[in-house]
Amino acid sequence: MKSVLGYETVDYDREHHALVIVDQTKLPGEVDFLSLTSLREIRDAIYHLKVRGAPAIGVAAAYGLAALGWRIEADTAADFMKQLSRHRDDLCSVRPTAVNLSWALHRVYGACEDFLNRKPGEAQGRPEGEKIHKLREVLLREADRMKEEDADICRRIGEHGLDLLRPGDGILTHCNAGQLATCRYGTATAPIYLGQERGYGFHVYADETRPLLQGARLTAFELQSAGVDVTLICDNMAASLMAQGKIQAVLVGCDRVAANGDTANKIGTSMVAVAARHYRIPFYVCAPLSTIDRDTPTGREIQIEERPAEEVTRMWYRQPMCPPGVKVYNPAFDVTDHSLIHGFITELGVFSSPEEI
Amino acid sequence: MKSVLGYETVDYDREHHALVIVDQTKLPGEVDFLSLTSLREIRDAIYHLKVRGAPAIGVAAAYGLAALGWRIEADTAADFMKQLSRHRDDLCSVRPTAVNLSWALHRVYGACEDFLNRKPGEAQGRPEGEKIHKLREVLLREADRMKEEDADICRRIGEHGLDLLRPGDGILTHCNAGQLATCRYGTATAPIYLGQERGYGFHVYADETRPLLQGARLTAFELQSAGVDVTLICDNMAASLMAQGKIQAVLVGCDRVAANGDTANKIGTSMVAVAARHYRIPFYVCAPLSTIDRDTPTGREIQIEERPAEEVTRMWYRQPMCPPGVKVYNPAFDVTDHSLIHGFITELGVFSSPEEI
Repeated sequence: MKSVLGYETVDYDREHHALVIVDQTKLPGEVDFLSLTSLREIRDAIYHLKVRGAPAIGVAAAYGLAALGWRIEADTAADFMKQLSRHRDDLCSVRPTAVNLSWALHRVYGACEDFLNRKPGEAQGRPEGEKIHKLREVLLREADRMKEEDADICRRIGEHGLDLLRPGDGILTHCNAGQLATCRYGTATAPIYLGQERGYGFHVYADETRPLLQGARLTAFELQSAGVDVTLICDNMAASLMAQGKIQAVLVGCDRVAANGDTANKIGTSMVAVAARHYRIPFYVCAPLSTIDRDTPTGREIQIEERPAEEVTRMWYRQPMCPPGVKVYNPAFDVTDHSLIHGFITELGVFSSPEEI
Repeated sequence: MKSVLGYETVDYDREHHALVIVDQTKLPGEVDFLSLTSLREIRDAIYHLKVRGAPAIGVAAAYGLAALGWRIEADTAADFMKQLSRHRDDLCSVRPTAVNLSWALHRVYGACEDFLNRKPGEAQGRPEGEKIHKLREVLLREADRMKEEDADICRRIGEHGLDLLRPGDGILTHCNAGQLATCRYGTATAPIYLGQERGYGFHVYADETRPLLQGARLTAFELQSAGVDVTLICDNMAASLMAQGKIQAVLVGCDRVAANGDTANKIGTSMVAVAARHYRIPFYVCAPLSTIDRDTPTGREIQIEERPAEEVTRMWYRQPMCPPGVKVYNPAFDVTDHSLIHGFITELGVFSSPEEI
């Protein structure tokens, strides 16, 4: 399974020490690469969803911290770590619901701590400047490792997911948990891409995913690029397709899975899950183990990010699409109750609950 | 309960013999009145949803036929009726799902037939030109009567609906079954407007209703104009609000109710009904008796209009919102199974099934 897009969603420019991403807010009209080196730029890219999707955000944050580490001016390794931890916390706060962001930042930071604390032979006694240089290498190496792992995880999710599907199935997906949300293959799209290679002839329905239309702009785009039979629908049409027997499985990604299986994902996911339950269609969450947050007992403890009203209200150009000043509720995510989830497709196999893993 | 908008949604210009409507595709940015006199203009207004909402379409079609009748050139009443029946059939075909359209056109046409057949004293023996003149008056009188009845029906739906609600309730509505969908008061909004007058302090959530955003453009607009506490949401956010306990009742309109209670309404309605059932929230269909089609046994026999892909794909101006040429499924309506409907709020009271009425 190769990249269907011919380019990387998230990368690192080793010459200029920059985080490089495809600006996903400009897709599918324009494929624009951004080279980011400052805290402000990286924060902005994550907040404005120029890079999005839990795994991609994680790897982008890791490379981002590596790029920032390259620019930290410090006399001692301790000072370097202090500045680095400030950057880490700052980036962590940008999108509170996505557990991968925090997980990735703590992982690369932790690799630096490990280097300093647990390998006295490597770090102790060296000049401070040399230690700082090594820390920068550790950051980048750990970010690279995360990216490789992500591609491998997606491939394995694809294999396990494909076991659950039959040729000719109609598959519904919500938002974008595709290649553009990861480093390659996607999570929810991985079984679809694998099936495509093996001639399964799936019929995929992509929810457009209001307000920001990730399904229309990204999922329909990448599936169409890969030659998958994809049909775009408005979110509210899913139940109608289910009632007509056109959907045999729902595959979605996730931003955070609580210990009991309650799953935070793009707003609208829980409504799809409720409809799937009503029509007795299996609803699967494609979940790298890194999205399982065992410190969060249930969905009630997951903080749901609310975003600006303008994402909902400003889409038309010829005329206002709603009355000026109207109140808007715009949560970015919702929580799907674990009871609605048929299975979690992970890199280790399919589980009915995180408690089984 | 007065018009909250200060103007009529559908009217007849007696001087120029024209159907007059507010162009709802331009709301809320611009309040533009259209004066329509030709078959092409009237067809176009109905097809392009310049006038929409089952009751408003019905009255507009009736006035439209009156305006066309004014312009029919015929030597005999029989020829007049032949031409009129062609206009009637032509208008009927524009939006096949809306039963009111056909109902209204057959009603005004039928009034003419009645005049010719059943009142020999009035029609027989008169000169043909005089008969034609009378037929034109009959058309207009019947259309006027339908408009008055519609306002009265809406008010009575409001009273019956309000009995089901409590002060402070959160109410979800989908699409626009408001004043703009009727001649006055609305159907699904009638209990809300009545409650507003009586200090019920409802919190109303309006689904934006993709693809054409009738909820955002029309419902949020007219409720806000009336001072109702209204919050706009994307369609996919409804389940999330329900899970949070913020919705105590769902009120929707309908385009056609089959004899067994299966209900065709704006696409997305059935998904709201499924979610409401899951969260044990009563789901009410506000249904003038004219929307009940006893000739259609179940929802399976209701023809669902599919509309152009462009309604879904062309909304953004800075960039394409989906890849060019992507397949789109764009049904205008869906059918909500009768088992999901808690009650039908009609002008005669609240019924659990059309079979009870």
